[in-house]
Amino acid sequence: MPIIQSLLDTDFYKLMMGQLVFKLYADIPVKYAFKNRTKDIRLADIIDETELRRELDHVRTLRFNNSELHYLRGTNEYQERMFAEDYLMFLKNLQLPEYHLEIIDGNYKLEFSGHWAKAIYWEIPALAIVNELYFRGLMKNKSRFEKDHLRAEGIQRLSNKINLLHWCPNIIFTDFGTRRRFSRPWQDYVVRTMAQELPKQFIGTSNTALAMKYGLLPMGTSAHEMDMVAAAAAGKTDRGILRAHQRVLRNWWKQYGWDLSIALTDTFGTDFFFRDMTTEQAHSWKGLRQDSGDPIVFGEKAIAFYKKRGVDPRDKLLIFSDGLDIAAMMKISMHFAKRIKVTFGWGTNLTNDVGLKPLSLVIKIVEANGHPAVKLSDNLAKAIGDPAEVERYKRIFGYTQNYYEECKY
Amino acid sequence: MPIIQSLLDTDFYKLMMGQLVFKLYADIPVKYAFKNRTKDIRLADIIDETELRRELDHVRTLRFNNSELHYLRGTNEYQERMFAEDYLMFLKNLQLPEYHLEIIDGNYKLEFSGHWAKAIYWEIPALAIVNELYFRGLMKNKSRFEKDHLRAEGIQRLSNKINLLHWCPNIIFTDFGTRRRFSRPWQDYVVRTMAQELPKQFIGTSNTALAMKYGLLPMGTSAHEMDMVAAAAAGKTDRGILRAHQRVLRNWWKQYGWDLSIALTDTFGTDFFFRDMTTEQAHSWKGLRQDSGDPIVFGEKAIAFYKKRGVDPRDKLLIFSDGLDIAAMMKISMHFAKRIKVTFGWGTNLTNDVGLKPLSLVIKIVEANGHPAVKLSDNLAKAIGDPAEVERYKRIFGYTQNYYEECKY
Repeated sequence: MPIIQSLLDTDFYKLMMGQLVFKLYADIPVKYAFKNRTKDIRLADIIDETELRRELDHVRTLRFNNSELHYLRGTNEYQERMFAEDYLMFLKNLQLPEYHLEIIDGNYKLEFSGHWAKAIYWEIPALAIVNELYFRGLMKNKSRFEKDHLRAEGIQRLSNKINLLHWCPNIIFTDFGTRRRFSRPWQDYVVRTMAQELPKQFIGTSNTALAMKYGLLPMGTSAHEMDMVAAAAAGKTDRGILRAHQRVLRNWWKQYGWDLSIALTDTFGTDFFFRDMTTEQAHSWKGLRQDSGDPIVFGEKAIAFYKKRGVDPRDKLLIFSDGLDIAAMMKISMHFAKRIKVTFGWGTNLTNDVGLKPLSLVIKIVEANGHPAVKLSDNLAKAIGDPAEVERYKRIFGYTQNYYEECKY
Repeated sequence: MPIIQSLLDTDFYKLMMGQLVFKLYADIPVKYAFKNRTKDIRLADIIDETELRRELDHVRTLRFNNSELHYLRGTNEYQERMFAEDYLMFLKNLQLPEYHLEIIDGNYKLEFSGHWAKAIYWEIPALAIVNELYFRGLMKNKSRFEKDHLRAEGIQRLSNKINLLHWCPNIIFTDFGTRRRFSRPWQDYVVRTMAQELPKQFIGTSNTALAMKYGLLPMGTSAHEMDMVAAAAAGKTDRGILRAHQRVLRNWWKQYGWDLSIALTDTFGTDFFFRDMTTEQAHSWKGLRQDSGDPIVFGEKAIAFYKKRGVDPRDKLLIFSDGLDIAAMMKISMHFAKRIKVTFGWGTNLTNDVGLKPLSLVIKIVEANGHPAVKLSDNLAKAIGDPAEVERYKRIFGYTQNYYEECKY
């Protein structure tokens, strides 16, 4: 069975962003590149190139079927009809663009080029494929009992999580772990289990196929690529790059309104974000997502920001999604209790905690409209882009942060 | 695993009728009764009452989940939005009403009473349960190899059907076999196989859950109960009973328009139907469904009817659904080639042809608004109702037909 069996086996925010891209930025040529941040692992030693190509080729044979489109058309938790008919017809005919794959120094170079409207859908399935093939590779020569034992370890760890979460009823969370999952069946098992065991705390999943399969809430915010492409595509002028961020906020609000107004804060550094978000937006937007840097420092900045703009922080929502585990969630949850609303988008440690060290893999925009793309983030270990261009962006956005911490995942 | 796992595991026309009933006839008290037309089988000797109760009780615990409602909300093959939001909210809260079960002379007396809006959903799951438990009962004491052999026989017969249909590309058909299926997994297997092997001839399934699962077209027309309840509920006057039929046609058209305008012709006899359908309706409605009597005689009558009303029969569609097998479909298809469009709703012989004799079970309306309900049909073996009341209906509808043939299924 192929790893990816449906184009809905992707993060819901890809569809939210995908619709906006389809409407406003469809023809921008972009390039995404795969990056293995786990430096001591040479992926091509473990993942067979033929198998990887077979899995990627299979994704290109997939199409959205009628039921999947019916499901999207009928999705009404956020807006009466959040997906417009022209976008759904676009999805109906969507085939993912070609990929470029080669082995360089024992690692895979994997790139996706094409119009943004189509290339945007590669990131999640490609990451899920590389992860699953990697863990299959690790398990290949194990005995039957070693495989049984790995599953037992995964279930044991899942059980520990559930037990701890029973003691922390204030921790409300969502599965954000599609791209980093141990395997498709394992994410399925984890999501189904969480939905049954913690129905009041587990409020949904970013995996649209699993949301559909189990009747769960499909969840998502937006990703760095929105800001990165808008900035890079804005042209060569510093002013164009600087203003793209605010334009994305405005376009997003126009499309989705309050229900889906969670802003990702760290693309060009959170300090810039808080300068760029207007007082009106501070009032109107539902909340913010934290994805890098120190979560406590971020939350304090957010509370201070809201107070300064005359907003009661208790009406706002922070979604934390950066390398979470139970300890981090407990710490954040207790720290901000009754001061601001908090939920968690739980990724790698939820869907890939079976006793084997997870990889830190990403696929990021590297180019848009022929210009290099840049992400700064609140952790310089997560910065993306050519060093000279990163320096230029720091200057443009007045970036003075200097937090650096190797990525856990 | 329970037999019925979702309230969508029902015929699509139940939802189409269900919406109209919800809007226009919700509070009419009705009673449905189970009837075993296979006289030589005493069901209570084969089906354990405790198991039957467990399965029926389980159906009462089911609720439509969000994904199922999203799917219905997004269904757009017929109309942009064929299910209105108030109906979907009704479905969200729907629990099937209680049932009455007892054993009389080795057979089950099984009845469903309640408001029509809710009781309407019992027929299909209840029939599917009785069928599946019956065949489980037959297989209970068989050896492993005998079970394997039964499956092999089923696959062999399915393969024969597929081979023959490859030779008859003009035979276009739909699965109508939910209520009579050998088992839920077997219908699933048959539908999946037909969709893969005959994608141009197999155009959909009446099973909404399977349509959703496999991205197929959900198909349906309407059932006798629409006419039967409308007539019985119309009151005690002959005139009320007579006029109910035309009122149902008009209400259906108002709700669903051309796309779903396939009229069931035989509730009170097809001769009456052709007298009652107006010339305007003959022009506007898409077609007719034949469900009893001689299909060739029916088709000829339909062609003559259309010609007399100034309609080119080649623009109209006949759906045949009465006890079909390949031979019958070939005969009908060849007989009417190029004279009128023909498709087939293939039931028992599609989903329950594994080498064991299928049962002929029905659940029919027997009472509405305190009045006895009656169906005449074009085959007196299929007539339903108290004999005196049947005679009265014959008189009211000017019924002079005398076709009688024992039901195969």
